[in-house]
Amino acid sequence: VGCGSDASSERMLYLRATVAYDGTDYHGFQVQADQRTVQGTLEDALAAVTQQRVRVIGAGRTDSGVHALGQVVSFRAHWRHSVHDLHRALNAVLPGDTVVWSLSEAGEGFHPRFSARSRCYRYTIWNHCVRNPLLRRTSHWVFEPLLVGAMEDAAGLLVGEHDFATFGSPPQGENTVRRVFRATWTRQGNELRLDIEANAFLYRMVRSIVGTLVQVGKGELSVAAFGELLAAADRSLAGPTAPANGLSLEAVHY
Amino acid sequence: VGCGSDASSERMLYLRATVAYDGTDYHGFQVQADQRTVQGTLEDALAAVTQQRVRVIGAGRTDSGVHALGQVVSFRAHWRHSVHDLHRALNAVLPGDTVVWSLSEAGEGFHPRFSARSRCYRYTIWNHCVRNPLLRRTSHWVFEPLLVGAMEDAAGLLVGEHDFATFGSPPQGENTVRRVFRATWTRQGNELRLDIEANAFLYRMVRSIVGTLVQVGKGELSVAAFGELLAAADRSLAGPTAPANGLSLEAVHY
Repeated sequence: VGCGSDASSERMLYLRATVAYDGTDYHGFQVQADQRTVQGTLEDALAAVTQQRVRVIGAGRTDSGVHALGQVVSFRAHWRHSVHDLHRALNAVLPGDTVVWSLSEAGEGFHPRFSARSRCYRYTIWNHCVRNPLLRRTSHWVFEPLLVGAMEDAAGLLVGEHDFATFGSPPQGENTVRRVFRATWTRQGNELRLDIEANAFLYRMVRSIVGTLVQVGKGELSVAAFGELLAAADRSLAGPTAPANGLSLEAVHY
Repeated sequence: VGCGSDASSERMLYLRATVAYDGTDYHGFQVQADQRTVQGTLEDALAAVTQQRVRVIGAGRTDSGVHALGQVVSFRAHWRHSVHDLHRALNAVLPGDTVVWSLSEAGEGFHPRFSARSRCYRYTIWNHCVRNPLLRRTSHWVFEPLLVGAMEDAAGLLVGEHDFATFGSPPQGENTVRRVFRATWTRQGNELRLDIEANAFLYRMVRSIVGTLVQVGKGELSVAAFGELLAAADRSLAGPTAPANGLSLEAVHY
């Protein structure tokens, strides 16, 4: 087939990749015309390396500005070398803000979104009177002192199966019930991090939860009132949506 | 004097500021024609806020791409409001990659460079087979496994008063003897950090030391050979200079 390629030894591979990216300069994960997206960048890298138009499917469609350390994608491609070689070749052509963390063959039944049992997100707040220029791309600055104990108590109310309609809308009009496995705040110096894991998330759910938990932290909303907002299952009751830059998709579990 | 300013209550203040910046988009600290520099950016902010041309003096002239959490600068300015107001006004006009961490009045004898007793630098290495897009601005990627124990032993040889001519040149042909108070590596996950404190540093000294310590970590240079390089006081013997992006001026002590 030209260029010295040995068509006879090519195989159609079904692959699964864990992908990390700095979302700052992306217009989100999903391909959009005339916008730089993670999906488009991965598909361009695959085209450059494999000489094929390859469609990439992701576990979660992260918004514009949202980062990932553990996004999971799948794709099919003809490739006659090793998976390790493909991994190296992809990272050699991907831009500095994006990398394939790991690459392996996937079972035929695998689907990055539908096979996922849970997603883990982390939201990072820089909580200090002065902003931090070295964390500006990866954290949300809150200068007011925060009542972390109250934020922890309120986050605890999220755990379990609930109708989360207050904190987000479903992608396609489905139901708004989700199961949160954990939602915990940790403080390290002036950084506050929410780690939240759920079977799935509604659109902008983590950012809406964080914006409302920050209201609790500022003393503008009691823990009990936060519980009532959750129970009301009314989108109009949520606090502000926290900015995208603090959010990262940390892992997807299968 | 126009604009409602009350000249009678203006005072000439002598101020000391701790400054943090992401050095990625700077051509170093020191003013250069037609280049974006930290000093120039601070002076522009002071001009915008105080309506005066103010000269800023820094403790250390960090190179292009080098970061700071604890750079110290001083300047004199006429100001009729509080120091707190000046602090807030400066941070309001400074760009996102630069901030005044703290601001206070300085004693008349204070000089950011000459009064300094010691400087603390941190060098961060991302040590993993795959690069990390979220740390690409603030760490140097080394994909080979590193012998951290050997790097620690070699770093220990730096402590004390030595002629560091192997690892840098003096700013103005002075002597090359410096006193290193500590030089320790710590590992946190895949991040390796060298914290090094000295009374003063030669030009590019930390990056030259790190480049040579990485050779020790790769097993290309023994700890004993590292000690011989140091003792030789010969600039031509140093390993490669590690990239600027891993380096940060953490603090200056007075």
